[in-house]
Amino acid sequence: MISFKNDYSEGAYTGILEKMLEQNTIQNAGYGEDIHCQRAKKAIEKKLCCEDCAIHFLVGGTQANLTVISHCLKPYQGVIAADSGHINVHETGAIEATGHKVIAMPCQYGKLSVADVQKALDIHTDEHMVQPKMVYVSNPTEVGTLYTKKELEQLRDFCREKDLIFYLDGARMASALTAPDNDIAFEAYQNLVDILYIGGTKCGALFGEAVVFFKKALQKDFRFSIKQKGAMLAKGWLLGIQFETLFENHVYEELGKYANDMAKKIERAISKKGYSFAFPHCSNQLFPIFPDDVLKKLEKEFAFTFWEKTDEKHTAIRIVTSWATKEDNVNKLIEAIERS
Amino acid sequence: MISFKNDYSEGAYTGILEKMLEQNTIQNAGYGEDIHCQRAKKAIEKKLCCEDCAIHFLVGGTQANLTVISHCLKPYQGVIAADSGHINVHETGAIEATGHKVIAMPCQYGKLSVADVQKALDIHTDEHMVQPKMVYVSNPTEVGTLYTKKELEQLRDFCREKDLIFYLDGARMASALTAPDNDIAFEAYQNLVDILYIGGTKCGALFGEAVVFFKKALQKDFRFSIKQKGAMLAKGWLLGIQFETLFENHVYEELGKYANDMAKKIERAISKKGYSFAFPHCSNQLFPIFPDDVLKKLEKEFAFTFWEKTDEKHTAIRIVTSWATKEDNVNKLIEAIERS
Amino acid sequence: MISFKNDYSEGAYTGILEKMLEQNTIQNAGYGEDIHCQRAKKAIEKKLCCEDCAIHFLVGGTQANLTVISHCLKPYQGVIAADSGHINVHETGAIEATGHKVIAMPCQYGKLSVADVQKALDIHTDEHMVQPKMVYVSNPTEVGTLYTKKELEQLRDFCREKDLIFYLDGARMASALTAPDNDIAFEAYQNLVDILYIGGTKCGALFGEAVVFFKKALQKDFRFSIKQKGAMLAKGWLLGIQFETLFENHVYEELGKYANDMAKKIERAISKKGYSFAFPHCSNQLFPIFPDDVLKKLEKEFAFTFWEKTDEKHTAIRIVTSWATKEDNVNKLIEAIERS
Amino acid sequence: MISFKNDYSEGAYTGILEKMLEQNTIQNAGYGEDIHCQRAKKAIEKKLCCEDCAIHFLVGGTQANLTVISHCLKPYQGVIAADSGHINVHETGAIEATGHKVIAMPCQYGKLSVADVQKALDIHTDEHMVQPKMVYVSNPTEVGTLYTKKELEQLRDFCREKDLIFYLDGARMASALTAPDNDIAFEAYQNLVDILYIGGTKCGALFGEAVVFFKKALQKDFRFSIKQKGAMLAKGWLLGIQFETLFENHVYEELGKYANDMAKKIERAISKKGYSFAFPHCSNQLFPIFPDDVLKKLEKEFAFTFWEKTDEKHTAIRIVTSWATKEDNVNKLIEAIERS
Repeated sequence: MISFKNDYSEGAYTGILEKMLEQNTIQNAGYGEDIHCQRAKKAIEKKLCCEDCAIHFLVGGTQANLTVISHCLKPYQGVIAADSGHINVHETGAIEATGHKVIAMPCQYGKLSVADVQKALDIHTDEHMVQPKMVYVSNPTEVGTLYTKKELEQLRDFCREKDLIFYLDGARMASALTAPDNDIAFEAYQNLVDILYIGGTKCGALFGEAVVFFKKALQKDFRFSIKQKGAMLAKGWLLGIQFETLFENHVYEELGKYANDMAKKIERAISKKGYSFAFPHCSNQLFPIFPDDVLKKLEKEFAFTFWEKTDEKHTAIRIVTSWATKEDNVNKLIEAIERS
Repeated sequence: MISFKNDYSEGAYTGILEKMLEQNTIQNAGYGEDIHCQRAKKAIEKKLCCEDCAIHFLVGGTQANLTVISHCLKPYQGVIAADSGHINVHETGAIEATGHKVIAMPCQYGKLSVADVQKALDIHTDEHMVQPKMVYVSNPTEVGTLYTKKELEQLRDFCREKDLIFYLDGARMASALTAPDNDIAFEAYQNLVDILYIGGTKCGALFGEAVVFFKKALQKDFRFSIKQKGAMLAKGWLLGIQFETLFENHVYEELGKYANDMAKKIERAISKKGYSFAFPHCSNQLFPIFPDDVLKKLEKEFAFTFWEKTDEKHTAIRIVTSWATKEDNVNKLIEAIERS
Repeated sequence: MISFKNDYSEGAYTGILEKMLEQNTIQNAGYGEDIHCQRAKKAIEKKLCCEDCAIHFLVGGTQANLTVISHCLKPYQGVIAADSGHINVHETGAIEATGHKVIAMPCQYGKLSVADVQKALDIHTDEHMVQPKMVYVSNPTEVGTLYTKKELEQLRDFCREKDLIFYLDGARMASALTAPDNDIAFEAYQNLVDILYIGGTKCGALFGEAVVFFKKALQKDFRFSIKQKGAMLAKGWLLGIQFETLFENHVYEELGKYANDMAKKIERAISKKGYSFAFPHCSNQLFPIFPDDVLKKLEKEFAFTFWEKTDEKHTAIRIVTSWATKEDNVNKLIEAIERS
Repeated sequence: MISFKNDYSEGAYTGILEKMLEQNTIQNAGYGEDIHCQRAKKAIEKKLCCEDCAIHFLVGGTQANLTVISHCLKPYQGVIAADSGHINVHETGAIEATGHKVIAMPCQYGKLSVADVQKALDIHTDEHMVQPKMVYVSNPTEVGTLYTKKELEQLRDFCREKDLIFYLDGARMASALTAPDNDIAFEAYQNLVDILYIGGTKCGALFGEAVVFFKKALQKDFRFSIKQKGAMLAKGWLLGIQFETLFENHVYEELGKYANDMAKKIERAISKKGYSFAFPHCSNQLFPIFPDDVLKKLEKEFAFTFWEKTDEKHTAIRIVTSWATKEDNVNKLIEAIERS
């Protein structure tokens, strides 16, 4: 069975494991206070063209989100997100478990607009409701779509006007950065959002996410929060080695581009065959709608994620590619689609 | 500088990294539902001689503690621990952050006795105080001492009588199992405690802790808690590979024994020189008390953890050995001590 | 200015204050362990025709909801509610502050149906989402509508089938019980829901809510939760005296009926005048839609709660009557409406 | 049976209930935004000689403590208290339930010193431990002792130096203010602490505590916290009426003085008889040590709170007087002691 279920089915870009092996017996300071984390931070800062930000490495995405959000909010404050936002449904109430309401707004294509945020503010007017204090977006979104630079600028301006913290979850940032339609350079993010999380797990690392505070005041004492939430890796240099490897050259972008290319190939084959998509294709995720009998045949050889029934005889599924997707497998899938 | 500060300054037993590299491009199911985790569980069950327990792999120790404790307790319940217990001081209030009081009892040599637990119960008598519901111990303790089998049996019997959950943190279990004075076989734990956490991070793994529920009723829905606390690793098989490697043969015990042997060598040299110890030596941690001038000299070449001033001219420090401690470095330290 | 803004603008049914004054210097046991609380419980049990339930008195509604819900749920469990439910918006994230997600479902007329609950279950399928474990409804709802007995039976049956706790917030129970369209006798509740909260604050008491656990297993150690949440009144007998007074005779129902009657009078006048309502009128709350110029005039003499703009020239407001509403003021309002 | 168990066994200063009855049918704004709360605030400000503080009324003491502390602290911060402090043991983990560690320091006579706070800071040095951020003291303490002005000044100076919030729980402030040994005028508190809670429940009110923020920056958005914690009374003016009555004249002090006088009378009788005390007598609480046979006789007529066994044949108990203690009952107790 060949899986297109997700982008975390394989290990890591080989250079990472090789470096871990090479460095294996060298002593390092614990808890992220080592030389590899330092180097990785420098490398990321350089890519971001930002010298005055604060970077912390965490192990996973839900962990990063809950640690950042609970660190920044007062107990009575909430975070506004698209209803499809990862923090709203797919984190088992992790944000609520730290005491904060996720104010979920119905959104099209997974993208939150200024109008959505305004609507959330309109219904939270006084101390009988939570106080909206943060806006959470993902880029790419959970359904693979991308924000334009203009959209993020509008959200940023609105957040500044309303004194809201603007936080961007970039779990698949490698894919966003290298998507054909992307118009946001990596170095532009410092002027767009207050906090950025750059994904490792889904972009070539074994695990690990880099949280970047552009608004440095927000990161005061952040290491206390990391430790308290169980997110401080004893052997923190393992995170350093990974981000160092991904960012010191162009590995991160190359891996992202490869994933996007593979998705594009599949998308063309599906479109050519005349099938439609539940969401416009932008990055390394595809949401084709197949007739059920076609899907049944495909599922004999390939594993996908079920998305939703679109009508009685059709089903939308999710196909995800990654740095590790074998082109050979992509070709096999394309052939199977063409045959269908 | 040669560090004896802790047992997490190096990477992992080489076999682990080699296996990760070997398996790197093979697709696995995510979130711990893969074949390596299955194998690792089987291997641990076999070592524990226990077929009817539930095992879950988490990334780190604070994470394991906060996830287990918050999963098991009702909101108004507390956990009794030695005042030196890891959960009481060194986890940045992680347990309290999940809503639970750590009922810390002053203890000698880091070990909680039935009398201590009774005392905690005596002062928590009704609904105006938290309800003690769990007893937390570490073996080895945070100061390197060991429980005897009899001591754990007494605690177990008392816990059963009082309907308390008995949880043992074995972050350094490899060292406990192979310590010269240890009288508790691995397979005995199933009859001693309700929940056991078997440490990986400090015992040869890159990271990872195995939580074993002997009392299976307690683990109902535990995967929800793992996910909610940000403790569910996307590429869960990385934990599987590690514990598989450590437990399918005798690697875990061998690494523990090696660490203990290195500590023993150092301990003999210190004793021979006439220095005393803040705590009796039992496992891979030593707490020698050095004259300050001696310490000053040693610290030019070696890094230790400061423990406490014992008087105006003496200081207790912590020396930790591990699977990765080079015997050569141990010899250098011994020579330096002998010269002092 | 005559206020119809809410049903908690005046003190209490006079008999309550008189009894407090009469009993003022008599010593009572603290924390609800007094004879008045005992009597009040007996009186409520008698009205409910239920001898085997557990009753606790709390001070306020948000407090009752957060204490009950956090007591019953495991950390990873959530509560399903109508999006208009009090716990979803108007409690400043009180439920989330105890760690639990409110799974808010869009509902018509403030009423949750079996289909809504099923939909919530459909999208919460595994450990990556919270586990729905409780269903919360209000009767009357926040928009004054009533559940029929059949509707509650359907929800009850579904909850039993799915092992969900069924909790009913009766902050305005006096109004529900005596509403013209009500078909649920007080003694029927024991067979409909697992937990019931009977409102005092809005039904003639100075303050206070009675939480009734019909499913007694759920109330184990509830007094610990009451104390921990700051909800245990030192002079608990003040709650006892109030519920004793309301329930030993028919005061509770009489006060509820009076409030409903006053609302009905106003409703007739509004309907007669040809204005419509945002929600069907069922209990002591009315949501008339007035032309803005009419409203402007009315607001010179009367205070209402703004509900929403229904179009450019019309506004829905909320009018609430209570046991304390003076008929004289109702007549003045009716005259003003007729004049409008 | 005549109870000396506590100072919350009777209702309220009669003037309070009379005023409630008098105002009963007058409409007031809800949630503390009424004219009585305004007046009460003015009256308290006047007594405190402080025009620039922010005052909020809450219902009970545990509630006040948990709301204030959780409002002021970041998630990873803890509060330092005497181990006998109310928040440490007698609030069922209410502070921990909001996520914060109570750093309990062993103290003599219930009083925290600068040395104790320094010791707490010494053992909380980095992000692996909670960050101490608040110092909590009670005056009178839980064992009836009083701080001197100098002691509070020292704590204040130390708190300022270390950037710690200084919070004083004055649940029995009426007794503190009027104790024979007290040297702290009410108007001095504004220069001593950052936040003060002035007790009503134990000082003549039915219920209610006034939280005074002298450091106004700390109270930003405090009403959100009040609401979220279930502490916002719908009929908030009930709190206003009570504090208005207690503070517009000298009622509060008179009630406190009376309670102290009654305690003094009893203390003299006990001392005269030759019995000793577990703690020095300072306010309205006495902790005499009686021979067990004497106690047994006394307990036939009088109810006390058991404190602790002091040796095999002696027991320390707690005797509490209040504004409501009948002098006649005091005389009866004295006679019984004399006879013993």
